[in-house]
Amino acid sequence: MKEIQDYIERNKARFMDEYFQLLRIPSVSSQSQHAPDMLACTDLLRQLFLAAGADRVEVLPTAGHPVFYAEKHVSPELPTVLVYGHYDVQPPEPFELWETPPFEPSERGGRVYARGANDNKGQFFAHLKALELMSALGGPPCNIKFMIEGEEEVGSPNLRAFCEQNQELLKADALLISDTSMIDPTTPSLTTGMRGLCYWQVELTGPSRDLHSGLYGGAVANPLVALAQMVAQLHDAEGRVTIPGFYDKVRQFSDQERAALAAGPFDQDEFNRSIGIPEAVGEEGFSTRERVGIRPCLDLCGIWGGYTGQGAKTVLPSKAYAKISTRLVPDQDHHEVAVLFQRYFEGLAPKGVSVKVEYLHGGNPFISKADSPAYRAAEQAVWDAFGSPSIPVYSGGSIPILSVFEEVLGLNAVLMGIGLDSDAIHSPNESFRVDQLLNGIAAATRFHQHFVGLQA
Amino acid sequence: MKEIQDYIERNKARFMDEYFQLLRIPSVSSQSQHAPDMLACTDLLRQLFLAAGADRVEVLPTAGHPVFYAEKHVSPELPTVLVYGHYDVQPPEPFELWETPPFEPSERGGRVYARGANDNKGQFFAHLKALELMSALGGPPCNIKFMIEGEEEVGSPNLRAFCEQNQELLKADALLISDTSMIDPTTPSLTTGMRGLCYWQVELTGPSRDLHSGLYGGAVANPLVALAQMVAQLHDAEGRVTIPGFYDKVRQFSDQERAALAAGPFDQDEFNRSIGIPEAVGEEGFSTRERVGIRPCLDLCGIWGGYTGQGAKTVLPSKAYAKISTRLVPDQDHHEVAVLFQRYFEGLAPKGVSVKVEYLHGGNPFISKADSPAYRAAEQAVWDAFGSPSIPVYSGGSIPILSVFEEVLGLNAVLMGIGLDSDAIHSPNESFRVDQLLNGIAAATRFHQHFVGLQA
Repeated sequence: MKEIQDYIERNKARFMDEYFQLLRIPSVSSQSQHAPDMLACTDLLRQLFLAAGADRVEVLPTAGHPVFYAEKHVSPELPTVLVYGHYDVQPPEPFELWETPPFEPSERGGRVYARGANDNKGQFFAHLKALELMSALGGPPCNIKFMIEGEEEVGSPNLRAFCEQNQELLKADALLISDTSMIDPTTPSLTTGMRGLCYWQVELTGPSRDLHSGLYGGAVANPLVALAQMVAQLHDAEGRVTIPGFYDKVRQFSDQERAALAAGPFDQDEFNRSIGIPEAVGEEGFSTRERVGIRPCLDLCGIWGGYTGQGAKTVLPSKAYAKISTRLVPDQDHHEVAVLFQRYFEGLAPKGVSVKVEYLHGGNPFISKADSPAYRAAEQAVWDAFGSPSIPVYSGGSIPILSVFEEVLGLNAVLMGIGLDSDAIHSPNESFRVDQLLNGIAAATRFHQHFVGLQA
Repeated sequence: MKEIQDYIERNKARFMDEYFQLLRIPSVSSQSQHAPDMLACTDLLRQLFLAAGADRVEVLPTAGHPVFYAEKHVSPELPTVLVYGHYDVQPPEPFELWETPPFEPSERGGRVYARGANDNKGQFFAHLKALELMSALGGPPCNIKFMIEGEEEVGSPNLRAFCEQNQELLKADALLISDTSMIDPTTPSLTTGMRGLCYWQVELTGPSRDLHSGLYGGAVANPLVALAQMVAQLHDAEGRVTIPGFYDKVRQFSDQERAALAAGPFDQDEFNRSIGIPEAVGEEGFSTRERVGIRPCLDLCGIWGGYTGQGAKTVLPSKAYAKISTRLVPDQDHHEVAVLFQRYFEGLAPKGVSVKVEYLHGGNPFISKADSPAYRAAEQAVWDAFGSPSIPVYSGGSIPILSVFEEVLGLNAVLMGIGLDSDAIHSPNESFRVDQLLNGIAAATRFHQHFVGLQA
C-alpha cells in the first residue's frame, strides 16, 4: 500500500488535470446535439489509456454511441479482469440550479463539482489511473480489459448486441464495476443488490388543438386533469403500486434478512436533513432502507403540458405528457412489468382522452454472488484502501445492463463503488470527493492483486 | 347602409394594409421581453386614430402597460359612447404548431391568420374604421371615446385604478365592446352573460433538490405524484368541482331559462368534430352549452416539473408546478372563490410535500341589461350588418374587467362581438374572417346611429 500511496501522492496534480479534461466534455447521451461530444470523449479516452500503459485501444461502433475498449495483456496464463464503466452523463438541466457550470469542473472544499464528476467519469477514472500505476510499478498482476460504454444513461440499448458480437473480445474471469456508493467515507461497502428499472413516456390527447379555456372549459375533457387522475390511481393509500400483478414476483425477505439489513449504520434524521424533507414517505410497513433496497416503487420523473411560461394563459390544452418509471426488485422481470403497466395505464384513461404509452427502456434487478473470488477480492481491496471492513448493501439504483452481462458473458459483476450518496448524481451540483477518488485508485489497484492471490 | 358599404368597398385594400401593420407587432403583455412592442403598438394606434378623425389621442400610463385613449368630440348636447378594446395579445406558443408565423399575418381562404387577428386587434379595428367612415361621411352622430388597454390578457391588473383615476375622462352614456363571438356568420348574437375567472399558480416542493430516482425512489414523497393526487381530488366522479362552498352562490336557472338556452342553434356533432374530440365531457346533468354558459368549471391550463426533454432522465424532482383556473357564473365572487380554493388546495397536500398557492388574477361574472337603449341599438346594428336578427348567448369566456366598469364607471357593457368560435383565439393559427371584419365595420357604424335614434 505504501508504494501505491506514494505514487498517487506524487502524481496527484496531473491526475486532477486529466480528470478535469474528461469532465469538460458534455457527453450527454440522451441529447442528439451532443453526438460530437461523445466522439471527443472517446478520443480523449484513447489518449489517456495509451498513456496509462494500455497495449490496445479501440473505439468500437454500435447502432448508437460507440463503446470504448482498452486492454493490457500480460500473459495468457494469468486470469483476466474486465472493468466496465460509462463515459456518457445525465442531462445537466436545470442549468440555473448549478452553482458553477456543469461542464466547467470546479474544486471547492475537497470536492470536484461537475456533471459526471462521480457518475461515472470519476469512478472509472480511478481504474484508469490504477492501470497507469500498475504499469509504472512493474506491470499488472493479471490481464485487464476495459469496456467504457456511451449509453448507460439512456438504458444501454445497444450493449446486449455489442456483447453478443464481441464475446471473445470481452472474455474474462471477473467483471468489476465502480458505479455505486459507499455508506460513508470510512465505511466501504459492496453493492450486493441493485434494483431493476422500467421507464415509459405517456402522451394524452384531448381536443385536437389547444382551446380557449373559457369558451370550452367545462364541456371538454382536459388532458392535464385526466393525466393527474390517472397518475393518482397508480398508488393506493398505503403507498403501494396498484398495477395488477406488480408485486406477484417480488421476493419476500425473511425476518432474519430484514434484521441484517437494519443492522447497518443509517440515520433517518440525517437522511431527511440531507435532502430537506420533513419526513420520509413510502410503502407502509417498510423502513427507508427497505423501501429503496428490497421494495419496488413507481415514480414520475417528469410531467408537462399546456402553458408553462410566465404569467397566465387561459388555455385548455390538447396534449399532456409524463415520464414514468418503476424500480424493480428480485424476482420481477422488466418485460413483464412493461406489459402490466401499459395494459393498466391505458385502461385508466377517462372519457374524452386517448392515451399512448411508449416503453423507453428497462432492465432487471441484480444480486451479487458474495462467495466468488472477485467479490472477496473487492472486500479486501476496499478494506486496504479505506481502512475498515466493508458492509454489503442493497442499492436502490439500477444498472440494467448487469443482467445482460450475466446472460451473455456469463459474468456476475462485483460492484465496488467509491462514490457517496451525498455526491448528488443526476442532480444539479453533482460532485465527487477528491479523497474518494484517490483512495479509489488504491482500491482498484489492490483488487487485481487480491484477485490473483485468491485464484492461486 | 348603401353609403356605408360603398365606403368600405372603396377603402378595403388600405384597411387590410393597416390591419396587417397592427398584427405585425408582437404585443404579448405577459412576456416582459415584449415591453417595447407594447409601446410600438400604442404609437401605431396614435397614428391610425388621428388619421381616422380622432381629435384627441393619448397614451396614458398605468403601473403596467399603458392605456391608449382616443376621442372624437362632436357636441356636449349629444350622448357619448365609450368603446373598449385591448391591444395586447395572448402568448403565441407553441410556435411549431403555427402554419405561418404568428406575427406575420397571412390571408388564406378569406381569413387572416395571426396572433390577435380576432382577439382583440381585429375586433377593435372595426370600431377604428367605423370612426374613420363616420368622420369621412359627415361626422359621427354622437361623441365617441376609445379606451384600448394593454393588459386584458393578463387580467387587467391596473385598469380598476385607471378607471378610478379617470372617471371624468371616461364618462359616457354607453359602453360598447367587441371581444366575443357570433353564433355563425349569418347568425349575429349579443353576449348576454360571461363567466368570471380565477387563475392560480401552484408550486409543490418535495426534497430540497432533484434526487436520483433509484437511490431515493420509494422512500421520498414525489411532488409530481403529489400534485397529480391533489389535482385528481378537484373533481368528483360526476364532473363537479369539489372545492367546499364553490357552488353555494351559483345561480340556478329555471326550466324556462334552460329551455330558451336550448332553443338556439347548436350541433353537438359539429362541436365535437371541430375540436377533434370523441365525446363531450363535463358536469353531469347539463348540456354542452349549459356547461360553458351557465355552469362554473375548473381546468388546468399548464403543468410542469422534473425532466421534460428528449429521452429518459431518472430523476425524483424537487418541484412541481401547475396553472389552475376556474370559470365562474353569477353570482359567484372571484375573491371568495380565491380564498375557498387556496384553503382547500393547501389542505390536500399529502405528507412530505409543501404547497404554495399564488393567485395571479380574477374577475367576476357578468350579465348584460337587455332592456337598455345601448343593448337595443346593438341588436339593430348587427341585424343591419349581418342580415338576421340576433340571438342572446351566454359565453363561457371572461372579460373580468366588466364588473369593474359597472362598479367604477356605472356602465353596463354591450357585448357586440363580431368574431366566430372557429377563429381559434388563444390557440395556434388564430384567424379572423375578412367578411366578418368588413361587416363588423358596418355594425359598429350603425350602432351609433341607432343609439342616438333610441335616445331621442
